[in-house]
Amino acid sequence: MIHVSMVVTGLGRVGGAFIRLLEEKADFCRLRFGLDLELHAAICRDGGLFSHKRHGLTGLGALSRGEVRTHPAWNAGLTLSEALSILDRGVLVECTPTDLRTGEPGLGYIQAALHAGWHVAAASKGALVLRYRELFDKAAERGVRIKCSGATAAALPTLDTATVALAGAEITAIDGILTGTTNHILGRMEAGMSFDEALREAQDKGIAEPDPALDIDGGDSACKILLIANSACGTELGLGDLPVTGIRGVTKADLDQASSQGKKLKLLGRLIRRDEAYKAEVGVFPVEPSHPLYHVDGTNKGIVFFTDTMGHVAVTGGKSDPRGTAAALLKDIINIYR
Amino acid sequence: MIHVSMVVTGLGRVGGAFIRLLEEKADFCRLRFGLDLELHAAICRDGGLFSHKRHGLTGLGALSRGEVRTHPAWNAGLTLSEALSILDRGVLVECTPTDLRTGEPGLGYIQAALHAGWHVAAASKGALVLRYRELFDKAAERGVRIKCSGATAAALPTLDTATVALAGAEITAIDGILTGTTNHILGRMEAGMSFDEALREAQDKGIAEPDPALDIDGGDSACKILLIANSACGTELGLGDLPVTGIRGVTKADLDQASSQGKKLKLLGRLIRRDEAYKAEVGVFPVEPSHPLYHVDGTNKGIVFFTDTMGHVAVTGGKSDPRGTAAALLKDIINIYR
Repeated sequence: MIHVSMVVTGLGRVGGAFIRLLEEKADFCRLRFGLDLELHAAICRDGGLFSHKRHGLTGLGALSRGEVRTHPAWNAGLTLSEALSILDRGVLVECTPTDLRTGEPGLGYIQAALHAGWHVAAASKGALVLRYRELFDKAAERGVRIKCSGATAAALPTLDTATVALAGAEITAIDGILTGTTNHILGRMEAGMSFDEALREAQDKGIAEPDPALDIDGGDSACKILLIANSACGTELGLGDLPVTGIRGVTKADLDQASSQGKKLKLLGRLIRRDEAYKAEVGVFPVEPSHPLYHVDGTNKGIVFFTDTMGHVAVTGGKSDPRGTAAALLKDIINIYR
Repeated sequence: MIHVSMVVTGLGRVGGAFIRLLEEKADFCRLRFGLDLELHAAICRDGGLFSHKRHGLTGLGALSRGEVRTHPAWNAGLTLSEALSILDRGVLVECTPTDLRTGEPGLGYIQAALHAGWHVAAASKGALVLRYRELFDKAAERGVRIKCSGATAAALPTLDTATVALAGAEITAIDGILTGTTNHILGRMEAGMSFDEALREAQDKGIAEPDPALDIDGGDSACKILLIANSACGTELGLGDLPVTGIRGVTKADLDQASSQGKKLKLLGRLIRRDEAYKAEVGVFPVEPSHPLYHVDGTNKGIVFFTDTMGHVAVTGGKSDPRGTAAALLKDIINIYR
């Protein structure tokens, strides 16, 4: 049995879902993988829960966000670095919200973890997108790994497919529907709604965020295609390197024109190799019925890799909710220790 | 740089394609993965090519089957065990034809490799299907690995998806179109051909084997779903444990009935978990438009995993020809050493 110390940063929807999943899957991970996954700290801005005991913090799954600060294990002002300095090395599970301007608070957390020789499984995108090379170099130097399935389309296995399932093949192009929200909205517009109506409906249903800009304007898809390209194709793309257009400008006339040619409009994150160099972009493209993503409708996501030796391989589906993201984090942790 | 000794058994279409792919990908594997993949022997029934030199056998890619026995490196009567006894440990690349009665000659080759402490990447199914538990136990005992992506739908990443991309999720069901040949024939029958006409056309086009029984009668799909289930779900299924029906009995009336309900008929390898136990079967099932495999047509293959935490994840595409199988073998070797 391998004992794995874990610290979660961020106690929002994803962090909470991860803690609940961990309790649900503890026995399964022991039996199937020989892994004893022990949560020792759960940190947020003003402190954290901490337990040095064998098996760590337990019974947190049912805790509401309000109850965290009155829990017996709560330490006001506890920082991640303090927690890491006491614990045996393990995995930081980074679940804070994505900030594409500063990368914080995830950036500071990831840097502290790498400095302490901890592996990182990240669901937040900001730090990885802004400081990709620096953070992965640091991880290599410290002999630890950064995994970010949870940041690259949650339970849709984009990175594992690109780096494990297609190992040895060269990726010549990628097309990805990487955001369920925009795919849903485009589908509703195809059915006759205006953009504003479709967006409002998606917000009412909890599909779109209250501030939907990151999805709607393509920024979320840009982060994902960038992280996938950098991980799988050896690129060192930053957000400034790819043109990004969202779905705000899509009109009924655009949809009708695509439809008259038998096509659908999809917001795609794209990567294309030309003359040994890769170019990425995010935009709305017409997709033909023979394209593997043509039938990916509603809030579903999908990605297709075109390769030199394996033909094309498409992956579709995978839950996008906090539980799906938590499952992607758990998967990364298991694969780090296998 | 890690030096990896390799021996190929079987010099047919898959073995030949693997040797050619290896020459094409040598530099890429050095640069991307730090792996120096060195082919030292290529063995068939009556002898083999052998070179103990650094970098091993080179320039074999262009060799026709007839030229093998007049090559300067040819050793009449050379056996795998002899070759393994001289070489540093590495990977056996098992490319002989599948024999579901005896498992030979692959079985003897795999046993010899495990005995000598070599890893195995297999494209043949017979030995693994007939002696699954015994061979994987032996590998565990010797501290080596058996990988069989090439035996489980070639470049369609069935096993990597199940075991890596979905790690930590519990698979509640699997549906797979695991044989391109039968999918193609059913599609042609939908378009109006009789079974015999569609089979003959597939044989004329090189899609179906001259002896198509293994595909047509479901045996090939049975081997694949069995290996996927045993690898991913911890089952210990043998061929006697699953009912297998092929496509020979499908009639125009069956197809018309499915079509009248908006469905298509597909030959599926299936696994279902009920009451903590898994049941596998192979047969022709009606598939609805909302099913992730409904649009997998022609010679394409696909597999969908239904899980407890990640929703469903479908993978489609992936080349089925010898080059696609060779790419799956290369992928397994890379992943063994990462």
